[in-house]
Amino acid sequence: MKTLSIGMFDSGVGGLTVLKEVRNLLPAEHIIYLGDTARVPYGNRSPHTVTKYALESALFLLTKGIKILVIACNTSAALSLNILKKKLPIPVLGVIDPGAKEAVTHTKKKKIGIIGTKATIRSMAYERAIRRLDPAIEVSSRPCPLFVPIVEEGLEHDEVAYLMAEKYLKEFKDSHIDVLVMGCTHYPILEDVIRKTMGDDVSIVHTGKETAKEVKKTLEREGIISETGRGHSEYFVTDSPESFEEIGSRFLGERITHIKFVKNLDYKDFLLSS
Amino acid sequence: MKTLSIGMFDSGVGGLTVLKEVRNLLPAEHIIYLGDTARVPYGNRSPHTVTKYALESALFLLTKGIKILVIACNTSAALSLNILKKKLPIPVLGVIDPGAKEAVTHTKKKKIGIIGTKATIRSMAYERAIRRLDPAIEVSSRPCPLFVPIVEEGLEHDEVAYLMAEKYLKEFKDSHIDVLVMGCTHYPILEDVIRKTMGDDVSIVHTGKETAKEVKKTLEREGIISETGRGHSEYFVTDSPESFEEIGSRFLGERITHIKFVKNLDYKDFLLSS
Repeated sequence: MKTLSIGMFDSGVGGLTVLKEVRNLLPAEHIIYLGDTARVPYGNRSPHTVTKYALESALFLLTKGIKILVIACNTSAALSLNILKKKLPIPVLGVIDPGAKEAVTHTKKKKIGIIGTKATIRSMAYERAIRRLDPAIEVSSRPCPLFVPIVEEGLEHDEVAYLMAEKYLKEFKDSHIDVLVMGCTHYPILEDVIRKTMGDDVSIVHTGKETAKEVKKTLEREGIISETGRGHSEYFVTDSPESFEEIGSRFLGERITHIKFVKNLDYKDFLLSS
Repeated sequence: MKTLSIGMFDSGVGGLTVLKEVRNLLPAEHIIYLGDTARVPYGNRSPHTVTKYALESALFLLTKGIKILVIACNTSAALSLNILKKKLPIPVLGVIDPGAKEAVTHTKKKKIGIIGTKATIRSMAYERAIRRLDPAIEVSSRPCPLFVPIVEEGLEHDEVAYLMAEKYLKEFKDSHIDVLVMGCTHYPILEDVIRKTMGDDVSIVHTGKETAKEVKKTLEREGIISETGRGHSEYFVTDSPESFEEIGSRFLGERITHIKFVKNLDYKDFLLSS
């Protein structure tokens, strides 16, 4: 069991900001990452479609031999964590609860802001997670749909990033929150812009960092943590590896190689073939 | 044959700018439109994946009874027109050739600019179509990946639209083209911004308008045009109808109703069920 991998999936490259944190904290673990790049982005899709895609990704990773599943995508975690927890025979973690916990720890004013995709914000998953921990906290949230394409186009230092950050974050500045959760795995690439826009009095929560700590705790609790040797990461994508390699290397801060193409995620196909 | 419908597909709502023109020109025709909203956008995907999706959309429409197929998506037309022409037993038209023809007619300086998605620009489909008509024409092109999300978010009158238009179109202004082809079905929504940015000396080609004329000619030539009565439009989408209704109504300039949800486009499923 210990030698099995950590499975992670995201709609595309975004989850690599989570993978990076998991790898830093757990360098002995093998990681198998799946990016569903043929169907990215999930953020504007319906709950039904996101859940279907999440189930297909989870089943694919299960056939590869994993001991824990990390939903490294806020949209999928917001909409599909419960069903995956119910259906899968291994521990399943999403990025929402660890992010919510960290936000609750840091807020003094009891005012938290959440930014994410339309589907994540509409799901109210962060609100529910935060209110479970402290019902007195005031949560405000808003989708920032242009942040993902801005990051994917490498425009995170361009004036368009600052312009959209001003527009999207204005209401949070007006409502005097003291913690802002980056509820989308793409947003850490914009952390500088978000920090400059919000000012120094607001703590920014990077859910990937918190999720990595939660993965470690879970593996320890279950007695399935690897602590010796050096783990490696393996990458699967549903569209051509080239563009994943290019954008993903920027996300990870190092060149990604050996990316494998998965023809399709229809679970009937890969259950028969594996 | 005459009473069959015109089939049109796009990755999402963009093709509605083409549908609008076809309906204006051919009000007696029935139109069946498919938006593959569960997998939109196609613009950053690989040729392999786009062609797979286009074939699935075409087969779905064939099972609905169509007499002509219009690929109302520049990315799909750029990458899949030839294979669809070969495989389908009915006339198939894309938006590229009509747009290219119109551009060639209008250029006096023999300098044409093309804007579109990454996949469309990378395919060089417009360059090839234009050079077949006049090899002496100089064609410059560039992808404008942020235009689609800007339009989908309803930001077509916002300063972010002008900022990105300035950035994307600067090189065309410097190279003194006199015709610019909007090589993506979303871009007509930005026509005002593009026109203001480029100035009055540059003609802007709306490929949907030209495609509608070509559809009419083809139906006449084949003797399968409907000229009496009033046609209606039917809409199918692969993700939830709500968001298609909201954005699509903006594209079409009137409320869209009766949108039907297609569970999935796996052709094995609908060939068995139809």
